[in-house]
Amino acid sequence: MDAPYLLFLGDARDDLAAKSARGVLIWRPEKCLGQMSLPGCKTTMGLPEMTPEQAAAKGARTFLIGVANAGGFIPETWVEPSVRALAAGLDVAAGMHTRLTDIPALAAAAAKHGRRLFDVRHPSRDFAVGKGSKRPGKRLLTVGTDCSCGKMFTSLAIEKEMRGRGLNAVFRATGQTGIMIAGDGVSVDAVVADFISGATEWLTPDNAADHWDVVEGQGSLFHPSYAGVTLGLIHGAQPDALIMCHEPTRQHMRGLPDRPLPSIAACIEATLGAARLTNPAVRMIGISMDTSRLDEAAARKALGQAAETTGVPAVDPLRTGVAPLVDRLTA
Amino acid sequence: MDAPYLLFLGDARDDLAAKSARGVLIWRPEKCLGQMSLPGCKTTMGLPEMTPEQAAAKGARTFLIGVANAGGFIPETWVEPSVRALAAGLDVAAGMHTRLTDIPALAAAAAKHGRRLFDVRHPSRDFAVGKGSKRPGKRLLTVGTDCSCGKMFTSLAIEKEMRGRGLNAVFRATGQTGIMIAGDGVSVDAVVADFISGATEWLTPDNAADHWDVVEGQGSLFHPSYAGVTLGLIHGAQPDALIMCHEPTRQHMRGLPDRPLPSIAACIEATLGAARLTNPAVRMIGISMDTSRLDEAAARKALGQAAETTGVPAVDPLRTGVAPLVDRLTA
Repeated sequence: MDAPYLLFLGDARDDLAAKSARGVLIWRPEKCLGQMSLPGCKTTMGLPEMTPEQAAAKGARTFLIGVANAGGFIPETWVEPSVRALAAGLDVAAGMHTRLTDIPALAAAAAKHGRRLFDVRHPSRDFAVGKGSKRPGKRLLTVGTDCSCGKMFTSLAIEKEMRGRGLNAVFRATGQTGIMIAGDGVSVDAVVADFISGATEWLTPDNAADHWDVVEGQGSLFHPSYAGVTLGLIHGAQPDALIMCHEPTRQHMRGLPDRPLPSIAACIEATLGAARLTNPAVRMIGISMDTSRLDEAAARKALGQAAETTGVPAVDPLRTGVAPLVDRLTA
Repeated sequence: MDAPYLLFLGDARDDLAAKSARGVLIWRPEKCLGQMSLPGCKTTMGLPEMTPEQAAAKGARTFLIGVANAGGFIPETWVEPSVRALAAGLDVAAGMHTRLTDIPALAAAAAKHGRRLFDVRHPSRDFAVGKGSKRPGKRLLTVGTDCSCGKMFTSLAIEKEMRGRGLNAVFRATGQTGIMIAGDGVSVDAVVADFISGATEWLTPDNAADHWDVVEGQGSLFHPSYAGVTLGLIHGAQPDALIMCHEPTRQHMRGLPDRPLPSIAACIEATLGAARLTNPAVRMIGISMDTSRLDEAAARKALGQAAETTGVPAVDPLRTGVAPLVDRLTA
């Protein structure tokens, strides 16, 4: 995906609906030229509002659909602006279940104008099955007690901190928002099941001895909907270092009201056990908590308790930064 | 898939190449009307050799491609007999990576003659994500120390033994040969990764309290290529009972010459730990070994040692039968 981007917000009903656009803006602001909203849009990125034609005139290369809706489909009202973007010379990217390429008007416009459609959720290549053999280069993987508890955010914060220290680190995206931020990656939950670990091996190939892949984790070994994806990702990434992500106010596993969260300690034990299959030397280097729903005192208490019970540093990327985790990585 | 079948053996280079045909013949002989070989075929099912037209005249309903080749594709020499079968009024079924429906000559012939093409390896429906909630009915799952160590064979032997005792049991197929034998099922390694457990929940739905689904396992939690599939299958099946399958002469994990097998005990511990997430009451009821590469004395010794170290019965379905495992299930 070529930058810079015009971020399309559609008729986003709230901030959360545009979380992909926001993720790209937070982590790759230099790639974001403007935004385009439809009537009724309830969020903003604070960027200049532009039409596709205006954005193209300013050098935009990709119309990035940064809004999601409940069904994961692309409504009719998003198609017309996308066609306009293609006509203006932009590529179009989206991370929906519905493929852009399956919408006849978009396929026709892309062909007519010689532009590309990026369905970042859908793999565009075949993968080999995973081998599990140790590869040169180092890898860090974020894991979690649940889905949606800060794995992507933590990975990006770690990459930023490492690069700030002059370390050789690259974020490796495994979900649609991460791919939009990184510009490439593999949505591992969308590959054919036999190839989860193989796709992850492809994403994190042989590298220099001092190179770190900072791999975005997915799901949780304790989430019965997605644990297979999590395990294949752990085996394929063969991490040297793990960071356990946790949201301390979560009442139940995401989407499963009757299922409590595992303890951080139980999750660490199970995850290390699984990871040792492809890297016996794997270490848990710390805990990353999203404490945004706690006040300062409660957040400090939660972080302190997590560090005490696990024996590794506990941080909140936003509240405390991730420096203690990178210290541990380089120690 | 409607029975009876004409088993197509193609130009199978050895017995193993026709293992799907053999599986169907062993487990569903009443569905097998005849066989069709091409020049150079190196195996036989011992059935009457027939053309598609002869088979159709005798009542055959499905032309079952029971032979595989290294690439998982469908060579030109298999297409012509398949087209003949469609013209003779048979459906065509195969379990290859290549889809029958992607071969223009077959798609055209199926449309022309109003017949069906079954690509049993490829899911023909969408699935929901798994929920992990406990369902009524009972489930047994075969698991293993490795791939290809007797999980399908053991499952079918258990189903047969249970039915012989008047128990309410159904084999649930999760791989292409199993699907050909059962006539339906889901090839869980071919679903999109997010839906491994969901597809398994669909395959083993709510049932009567005395009903047993006997679910065919896949892979191994210790196989780094496929463990994600194994874990999603374990969580989706939420087994009440597990049987650990093992091939005692295996020198390394299948396809990975540098990777030794786990011990049966380690594999039992990890598998029970994973299975407890969706069924805390899960039990390991026994070991099933393929001792066909051992002589009688060595086989008895291996079975005895496995039983002693694990505390559960150890059987070989062919050599000893699986009665001790079903005894344990009903005890």
